Amino acid sequence: MTSIAFIGLGHMGGPMAGNLVKAGHGITAFDLAQASMDAAAETGVGIAASARQAVADAEIVVTMLPAGKHVLSVWADILPAVKPGTLMIDSSTIDVESARKAHGLAAEHGCEALDAPVSGGTGGARGATLTFMVGGSEDAFARGEPVLARMGRRIVHCGGPGNGQAAKICNNMILGISMIGVCEAFVLAEKLGLSHQALFDVAATSSGQCWSLTTYCPVPGPVPTSPANHDYRPGFASALMLKDLKLAQEAAQAVGAATPLGAAAAQLFGLHNAWGEGGSDFSAIVQLLRGRGSA
Amino acid sequence: MTSIAFIGLGHMGGPMAGNLVKAGHGITAFDLAQASMDAAAETGVGIAASARQAVADAEIVVTMLPAGKHVLSVWADILPAVKPGTLMIDSSTIDVESARKAHGLAAEHGCEALDAPVSGGTGGARGATLTFMVGGSEDAFARGEPVLARMGRRIVHCGGPGNGQAAKICNNMILGISMIGVCEAFVLAEKLGLSHQALFDVAATSSGQCWSLTTYCPVPGPVPTSPANHDYRPGFASALMLKDLKLAQEAAQAVGAATPLGAAAAQLFGLHNAWGEGGSDFSAIVQLLRGRGSA
Amino acid sequence: MTSIAFIGLGHMGGPMAGNLVKAGHGITAFDLAQASMDAAAETGVGIAASARQAVADAEIVVTMLPAGKHVLSVWADILPAVKPGTLMIDSSTIDVESARKAHGLAAEHGCEALDAPVSGGTGGARGATLTFMVGGSEDAFARGEPVLARMGRRIVHCGGPGNGQAAKICNNMILGISMIGVCEAFVLAEKLGLSHQALFDVAATSSGQCWSLTTYCPVPGPVPTSPANHDYRPGFASALMLKDLKLAQEAAQAVGAATPLGAAAAQLFGLHNAWGEGGSDFSAIVQLLRGRGSA
Amino acid sequence: MTSIAFIGLGHMGGPMAGNLVKAGHGITAFDLAQASMDAAAETGVGIAASARQAVADAEIVVTMLPAGKHVLSVWADILPAVKPGTLMIDSSTIDVESARKAHGLAAEHGCEALDAPVSGGTGGARGATLTFMVGGSEDAFARGEPVLARMGRRIVHCGGPGNGQAAKICNNMILGISMIGVCEAFVLAEKLGLSHQALFDVAATSSGQCWSLTTYCPVPGPVPTSPANHDYRPGFASALMLKDLKLAQEAAQAVGAATPLGAAAAQLFGLHNAWGEGGSDFSAIVQLLRGRGSA
Repeated sequence: MTSIAFIGLGHMGGPMAGNLVKAGHGITAFDLAQASMDAAAETGVGIAASARQAVADAEIVVTMLPAGKHVLSVWADILPAVKPGTLMIDSSTIDVESARKAHGLAAEHGCEALDAPVSGGTGGARGATLTFMVGGSEDAFARGEPVLARMGRRIVHCGGPGNGQAAKICNNMILGISMIGVCEAFVLAEKLGLSHQALFDVAATSSGQCWSLTTYCPVPGPVPTSPANHDYRPGFASALMLKDLKLAQEAAQAVGAATPLGAAAAQLFGLHNAWGEGGSDFSAIVQLLRGRGSA
Repeated sequence: MTSIAFIGLGHMGGPMAGNLVKAGHGITAFDLAQASMDAAAETGVGIAASARQAVADAEIVVTMLPAGKHVLSVWADILPAVKPGTLMIDSSTIDVESARKAHGLAAEHGCEALDAPVSGGTGGARGATLTFMVGGSEDAFARGEPVLARMGRRIVHCGGPGNGQAAKICNNMILGISMIGVCEAFVLAEKLGLSHQALFDVAATSSGQCWSLTTYCPVPGPVPTSPANHDYRPGFASALMLKDLKLAQEAAQAVGAATPLGAAAAQLFGLHNAWGEGGSDFSAIVQLLRGRGSA
Repeated sequence: MTSIAFIGLGHMGGPMAGNLVKAGHGITAFDLAQASMDAAAETGVGIAASARQAVADAEIVVTMLPAGKHVLSVWADILPAVKPGTLMIDSSTIDVESARKAHGLAAEHGCEALDAPVSGGTGGARGATLTFMVGGSEDAFARGEPVLARMGRRIVHCGGPGNGQAAKICNNMILGISMIGVCEAFVLAEKLGLSHQALFDVAATSSGQCWSLTTYCPVPGPVPTSPANHDYRPGFASALMLKDLKLAQEAAQAVGAATPLGAAAAQLFGLHNAWGEGGSDFSAIVQLLRGRGSA
Repeated sequence: MTSIAFIGLGHMGGPMAGNLVKAGHGITAFDLAQASMDAAAETGVGIAASARQAVADAEIVVTMLPAGKHVLSVWADILPAVKPGTLMIDSSTIDVESARKAHGLAAEHGCEALDAPVSGGTGGARGATLTFMVGGSEDAFARGEPVLARMGRRIVHCGGPGNGQAAKICNNMILGISMIGVCEAFVLAEKLGLSHQALFDVAATSSGQCWSLTTYCPVPGPVPTSPANHDYRPGFASALMLKDLKLAQEAAQAVGAATPLGAAAAQLFGLHNAWGEGGSDFSAIVQLLRGRGSA
C-alpha cells in the first residue's frame, strides 16, 4: 500500500482516485468543489482541508486539472509541502511547455515527476481502462507504473519530461485530421450516390482504413457502437477535440513545426464549436460539412 | 474460356492481360505503343491491328487508359465494332462524370458496362492481388466478377454506374489526408524531442491508428517494408496521389460537397510535385513539411 | 451602325443588348426564354426565331450564357450559319479551357473571336458601366472595342485567346481571398474588444488596405454603401463568388498551379452555400466565421 | 522637453531614440548589448548602467523589445524604480494577452500605460515615418501622442489597453493573407499565359485591388519600388510576417475566433521559413508557390 495524494476530483479524477482506493492504496484528496469531495468520500477517498495538507504525507502525488496554468499554480503551491523524494504525477492534458516547467519545479524541490495524460474518457476512468502516455525518467516511470496500472490498461513510456503530453497531442492531431477526412469522404460519397456501407466496405479494408472509420464511424450504420448511432452524444466531445488541437497548434508554433492540416482541423472544430456544437461528439463535424443537405 | 479484348497494355494493363492469359482466357489486345504490344505478346496475348479489330469477337472488353477523355474517345471508337451484349469493363482511374458517360455510351450500343478501377499498384497487377472497386448493375457485376477475380484478390461491388470510381476517390482522399496528418505528427514529434518509435507505439494502438501509419509509415524504422526505408521509392508515386486528389476535387466541385482537408491535401501534393518530387513515393511529403531541418 | 446578334437575354444580357440599341446599333437577338425575349423587344431589340436565324446577317455576334458547355454548344450550333469574317464575342464568365476551345471553333469557320467576361453586376449592365476583360488578337480587339464600349466603361485587353477569362478568375480569386481575410480580421477584432471602426481606421490606410475593406466593408458602419449595411443583399452573391472560385480551381488544377488559399476560399464559400446562404452577398461570409456569437 | 527613458536600442529602438533626441527630449537609455548603447550614444542618447537606473527620473518610459515575455520581465524589473505617474509606453510587437498584463503591472505601480506597436520597418524608424497603433486610456493617449509623433507620422488611438496590439495583428493578418492571394493569382496567371502586367492592370483598378498588389507587388515590373525588383531583399522579412501571424493565431485561439485563412497563411509562411527563406522579403513566398517552374 502506497500513500497517495490526489488533487482534482472531477469527472475523470474522481473515478480514478476511486480505483486507487479499490486497489488498496491510501488516498488523501482535495478539490476546490465540495460536491466533488463529497462524492469521492463515498468511494473511500480521504478528504483533506487543502491541497497542501493532502500532500503532506504522500509518497506519490497525482494531479488532474483543466490546463497548464492550473497545474503550474497547484504544483507551486504544494511542492514546498511535499517530502523530498515524492513522485509527482500530472495526468492532466496540458501544453508541453507547461508540462516541462512542472518537471522543473519538481526537480527544484528534490522530486521526480511524470507527465501522464490519458485517453479513454470518463468510461475509461471508471473502468480503469485508460491509456497513459508517460514522460519522465526511466526511474520515475518504474516507480509510477504500478500505480498508473490500477487506473488504466496500457501504460506507455514515451521518453523524457513532456513526452507524454507530446505523444498525446500528436496522436490526437492525427485523430482530428483523419476524422474530418473520413467525414469529407462520406459527404462526397452521399452526393455522388455512393452508399455509406459501400464506402465503408471498401475503405475499411483498404488504404483509407483508420480508427476514425472502423472504430468510430461518423455516420450511422456501419459501426453500431459509434456515437453517430446515438445522436452524436459523446464519446469525445467536440470541445475537447478542439482543446487538444489547440494544444497541438500551440506546441507546433513554439517549435516551428509545419502542420497545415492540423491547423485546418483546429479551425474546422473551431467553427463547429462557434456554431454551438461543442457538446456534441467530435464526429458530428460531418454535419457541419454536409450543410443543410439530407444524409 | 472467355474471349476478351484488352485495350491499353501499360505498366498496369500489360501484366493484367497476362494474368488473364494464365487463367486460360483468349486475349486479343491493342495499345498505341508497339513496345507494349511486343511485351504483351510474349506473355501469350494476341495482338490486333487496331482497337476496333481487337474487340470484334470479344465477349468482354477491358480498357486500361490514363484519363476520362481517353476512355470516352476509345469507347466511342470501338463500341460500333463490338457485338451487342458485350460486357464493357473500364479499369482506368478516371473522373466519375466520364465514367457515367461511358456507361451511357455502352447502353446506346446495347452493352452493359462496369467501371472497375483498381488499387494495389504494379505489384498488385503482376501478382493478381489488386482490389477492384466496381460500379454497375448486379447483372453486369455477376458477369464481370469471375474475370476480374483472375486479376485481383478483392472484387467489391459498390453500386450502380460510376460508383467504383466514386469509391476509389473517396478512399484515396482519406488516404491522402491521413498520410499528411501522420507526417505532420512525426514532424511535430521530432521538434518536440519525441522519438519516431515512441509516437508509433502510442498511435498504432490508439485512436490515431491508420493505414498510413501502421502499414505505410512515412518515416524509416517502425514499419520496415514502407517506402520511407527505401529512399521513398514508390510504392505509390506522389504524382499519382495528386491525380487522385484532383479527381476527388473535380467530383466534389461538380456535386457541391465540402472537402476542406481534401482540398488542402491536393494543394500540398501540388506543391510537392511543383518542387520536383512527383516521382517519389507520396509518403515523402514528410520532407516537404520538415523543411531543411534534420530528421 | 453595326448589325449585331445577341444570344442570351438574361439579367445581364438583356440590359446589355438594350444599351447597344440605344447606341444606334441594329440588334437581332434570341433567348430560350420567351419572357426574356419579350422584355428585350420592348427595348427595341429585334427578336429572331432561333439562334441560327439571329446570327445570319450579323457582323458581330455576342453571347451571354451560364457556363462553358452552353457557349460551346451554342457556338457549334450557330457558327455554320454566320458569315465568315464575323466577329464572335463571348461575354459569359466561363472556364479558360472552354473559352480557348470556342476561339478554335470560330477559327475553323473563318471567324475571329474575343472572350470578354465582365465585372460590375446587373447594375453595371443596366448603366453601361461594366468592366470588360478581353482576350483575343489585337485585330479582333480593335474591332470589338467600340461595341463593348457602349456596354461598359473600361475595356481592358489582356492578351490572346482565353486571357480575358484568365484575368477575371485571377482577379476574383484575390477578391474572394481578401474578403475572407478582412472578415476574419473583423471577427478576431470583435473578440479582442477592438471596434470595427478602429480596425477600419488602421487598416484602410495601412498595409491591410484592400477593396474588400475600403469599398465593400463586410461589417456595417465604416462604408455606408456596402451590402453589410443592407442585410447583405447582393451586390455580388455568394453563389456567384463560389462559381468564380471553382472556375479558378478548375484552371489551377488543369495547369498545375498551387493556390492553397484559393482552394481554402472555395471551400469556405462552399460551406456558406451549403448552409443556405448562396443568395446573400458574398461578404456575409463574416457570419459563417462569427458563429452564433454576437457582433 | 520631456525626460524619457528608452529600453531596447536595436534596429528599431536605436533610431527611434535618436529621433527623440533630435526633437529636443532628454533621453536616458539602456540595452543589454553594449554595441547598441555605443551606437545610440553617438546620436546623443544618454546611457544608463541598468534599466532600473535609466527609468529613475523619467516622465515617460518607452520599451522596444522582442516578445511579450521580455516586456513583462523588464516592466516587472523597472516599475518599482519608476516614479508613480510615469507614462509607460511599450512599442514592441507582442501578444495581446501580455500587453494587457503589462497595463495591469503599470496600474499596480500607479502608472498609466500605452501599448503602441509600429509598422513601417527600419526605414520608418530612421525617417520618423512610423505608424503607431495605440491602446490605452484617452488620457494616456493624450500624454503620449506628442512624443510618439516625433518618431512617427500617423498615431492612431485604437481603444483601451491591448487594442494597439490587436489592431496591428488584425491588420497584418489581412496583409499576410492578401499577399499570398496576390501571389497565387500571379502564379496561376503565369501558367495560363496571362502576363504579370495584364493581371496587374486589371486587378489594380478592380475588386482585387489591395496594398499587396498595388504598393508591394510580389513580381518584378509593375511596381518598381517593390522588393520583387530587388531580389526580394526586405522590406518586411518573411520571419517577421511569420511572427505576426503566429501572434494573430495565438490571440485567435485564446478568444475562440475562427481564422481559417489566417491559420493557413501562418502555415505557408512557416513552410517558407522552414525552407530557409526567413530572411527574404515576405513577398518572396511567390517562389514557394511557383515551385521549380519558370516565371
